[in-house]
Amino acid sequence: MSKPSHEGMAAKKKENFDDWYTQVILKAELADYSPVSGCMVLRPSGYAIWEGIQTATDAEFKKAGISNTYFPIFIPERLLKKEAEHVQGFAPEVAWVTQAGNSDLEERLAIRPTSETLMYEVVSKWIRSWRDLPMRLNQWNNVVRWEFRHPTPFLRTREFLWNEGHSLFATREEADAERDEILGIYKKVTEQFMAIPGYLGRKSKSETFAGAEATYSIEHLLPDGKAIQGPDWHSDGQNFSKAFDITFIDQKGGKDHAWQNTWALTTREIGVMLAIHSDDRGAVVPPKLAAVQVVFVPIVNDESKEAVLAEARKLAAELAGRFRVFFDDRDHLTPGRKFNEWELKGVPVRVEFGPRDMKEGQAVLVRRDNGGKRTVKLASLPDEVGKELETIQDSLFQRASEELSKNTRDATTLAELKEILSQHGGMIRVPWCGKAECEAKMKEETGGKILNVPLGQGRRKGRCPVCSEEAGSIALFGKSY
Amino acid sequence: MSKPSHEGMAAKKKENFDDWYTQVILKAELADYSPVSGCMVLRPSGYAIWEGIQTATDAEFKKAGISNTYFPIFIPERLLKKEAEHVQGFAPEVAWVTQAGNSDLEERLAIRPTSETLMYEVVSKWIRSWRDLPMRLNQWNNVVRWEFRHPTPFLRTREFLWNEGHSLFATREEADAERDEILGIYKKVTEQFMAIPGYLGRKSKSETFAGAEATYSIEHLLPDGKAIQGPDWHSDGQNFSKAFDITFIDQKGGKDHAWQNTWALTTREIGVMLAIHSDDRGAVVPPKLAAVQVVFVPIVNDESKEAVLAEARKLAAELAGRFRVFFDDRDHLTPGRKFNEWELKGVPVRVEFGPRDMKEGQAVLVRRDNGGKRTVKLASLPDEVGKELETIQDSLFQRASEELSKNTRDATTLAELKEILSQHGGMIRVPWCGKAECEAKMKEETGGKILNVPLGQGRRKGRCPVCSEEAGSIALFGKSY
Repeated sequence: MSKPSHEGMAAKKKENFDDWYTQVILKAELADYSPVSGCMVLRPSGYAIWEGIQTATDAEFKKAGISNTYFPIFIPERLLKKEAEHVQGFAPEVAWVTQAGNSDLEERLAIRPTSETLMYEVVSKWIRSWRDLPMRLNQWNNVVRWEFRHPTPFLRTREFLWNEGHSLFATREEADAERDEILGIYKKVTEQFMAIPGYLGRKSKSETFAGAEATYSIEHLLPDGKAIQGPDWHSDGQNFSKAFDITFIDQKGGKDHAWQNTWALTTREIGVMLAIHSDDRGAVVPPKLAAVQVVFVPIVNDESKEAVLAEARKLAAELAGRFRVFFDDRDHLTPGRKFNEWELKGVPVRVEFGPRDMKEGQAVLVRRDNGGKRTVKLASLPDEVGKELETIQDSLFQRASEELSKNTRDATTLAELKEILSQHGGMIRVPWCGKAECEAKMKEETGGKILNVPLGQGRRKGRCPVCSEEAGSIALFGKSY
Repeated sequence: MSKPSHEGMAAKKKENFDDWYTQVILKAELADYSPVSGCMVLRPSGYAIWEGIQTATDAEFKKAGISNTYFPIFIPERLLKKEAEHVQGFAPEVAWVTQAGNSDLEERLAIRPTSETLMYEVVSKWIRSWRDLPMRLNQWNNVVRWEFRHPTPFLRTREFLWNEGHSLFATREEADAERDEILGIYKKVTEQFMAIPGYLGRKSKSETFAGAEATYSIEHLLPDGKAIQGPDWHSDGQNFSKAFDITFIDQKGGKDHAWQNTWALTTREIGVMLAIHSDDRGAVVPPKLAAVQVVFVPIVNDESKEAVLAEARKLAAELAGRFRVFFDDRDHLTPGRKFNEWELKGVPVRVEFGPRDMKEGQAVLVRRDNGGKRTVKLASLPDEVGKELETIQDSLFQRASEELSKNTRDATTLAELKEILSQHGGMIRVPWCGKAECEAKMKEETGGKILNVPLGQGRRKGRCPVCSEEAGSIALFGKSY
């Protein structure tokens, strides 16, 4: 057990989101600052969330036939430069190794900001014929992007953890067909585990990943009205396979370049999740990802201490067979102090059990998300705790979805767009003709940007608020984190 | 599926161990070289072994109450220098980041060769009182040690993956008591999963980890007669807690420094495992860690093709409910070619199933480790495959243990030590008085070194071969990788 937090929350979510967010992360002991500016420490409760996300996502990857691998963290400078757009996108943020021991290296080595260039140089040697395709590889690793903007735990850090998926196909059709599978996995993990909703759509050209032909993303909404990008999937076409000479003999005996995609989900997503669910009493963590799902607090007085503790221990042990349980019998803290601590840390369900409960054959369940309290019979305690955890999981997603709907508005003119953005923030649906200059104008006029063009919207009516031409689609617009 | 290996093994294990080992790793597609000298790529089958080791080890860590965390990969130079012996041990091998984007950094950042200094700077702020102890943290991450010796996949690479455990206790007694628990976990994982035996003991002072008071290791024997160090556990005493000011208020209200240990198991261990079990036909991977445990090869002729394939598919699907199965129905390869490929890759059990087997209601099981073949009834196929996998797992450990015993010899004089070492290599038990100068003399005279002083040997008789004084213990001596 790490030490109890001696101080509770001070900032309010609605009044000062930035301070509130940082307090939640630090006081709930999910992450901490480090001596390296912009790099954070994931503490046990924070890392446990990442382990939960990894486990859920990785199981889906494995079902899809994707294999995990590990490639070196270093990328020689000459390789990073092989795909022109890609290096332009990343060069300003690359951390460079130039010395080893007492020697200067002959060539600078980039700490991977992403592994395309290194991986493809190697993978090109593994592929000979169409029989070697598809090849779908993934890495769970650390990457470094030396950003100079203000760092925030989880949301913007110079080093972060992620999955980077890289797949190669024999045809464009097969490559494209991967999109819905991967984004479906990300949608499932974000919705069903992290309990956060989002809009899935295609990024505009100007927001497309460096070196990719198309980028699709899930866009979330933070409580301060800013949008933030979640997991993404990129269609690279043959850009990299041409730069790295990834060729194969096709079924007719000809030579062709592979079609490639990449996709990622990062530890940033943990920050989004915590920002959305947490409240002024501290962290709220969805039950499926909480390091501790149930805290059992025995409430004792001097006469009944031994008997209550013995029974409580038995009950907690039974719960521990089904859930991640912490039995809090620390005797130097009052129950109230314990309640505050576990609320701050975001444990989804608290079980209270005292002398009177023992007499009545009951226990009290308290929900972290809404403070709801109810008494349950001991015989059905494990089942009731299970139900409570499911209810909390569902209700967090429900509430976040309602919040997102409520904060998604429509605009048809630039003036409307500007007004909604400055008054409410949030997500704004706006018709868009698809032209880069109209996108640039909207951005310039409002300070927001096109987040993505949501999928599955069919053919909508409307006119581009800039050029007044008929808009092929509705774009999702907002201020982005 | 990655491409079939078009070339089999050429080198022989007994004739040219180094070439043979590299061929096994590369041709079985377990790992590959990378464009960064000394850094390797873990291919899917190789990484799957690491995932298996991680899963087994991590489950034991969690049972022991150890929490996973993630700390930054960068260590500011001033921090790395805070513990004098520690920095001396690592400085010659540190990779330094000196630039980010287009800027020079004000202070060089080390890529972690190990995380003591960074972690303890942070952890010192998490600990206030004895109630915060013990604190037992672990990381599964990548580290970099820029060695200039000849790199070998898994066995010696500049970047490698590992677990680094770091624990803090209120008393020396509690800290010391952790030793057997952690080494017990490593012993279990190496013996029961990797099927490799080793000698557990305490390193001499000259071989102790930089900054530690004592180092304990498991020492393995490679087939070329060289010893190689496996997982280790270090008692750091209060060295780091004094350098990093990790203090706590003890139960009496006084201030004390924490007692610390660290422990690690690395991807090197995969190389040791493969070197010990594999043979001249390629890799041999213990069933518990094999990416594919069972390859099912239907054997078809023109008349019976559809019927055999349909039945084979059904059988393989049933097996897949219990084991990691690959159903090899590729029709451009002959069965013989497939057998060779899967033997090269080290899949523990092959199931052959042809028209005649179908008629007889049977299948043929072939063991990778010894080529043993037997026919089993289809009704009991899953059970028989399960038994076969267990038998192989046990027999690999059995054989490796016999090999280790056979190659462990006794010496009582320097001349004997020298002779055994040059004639046989292997492990040599030799009495040792405990003095550093006698250790140095043995090393100088023979080219070998003291690997460790095995635990649990009681008080042995014997005299140090150098000084002729009574030896307190028997040391394990050998040429080390």
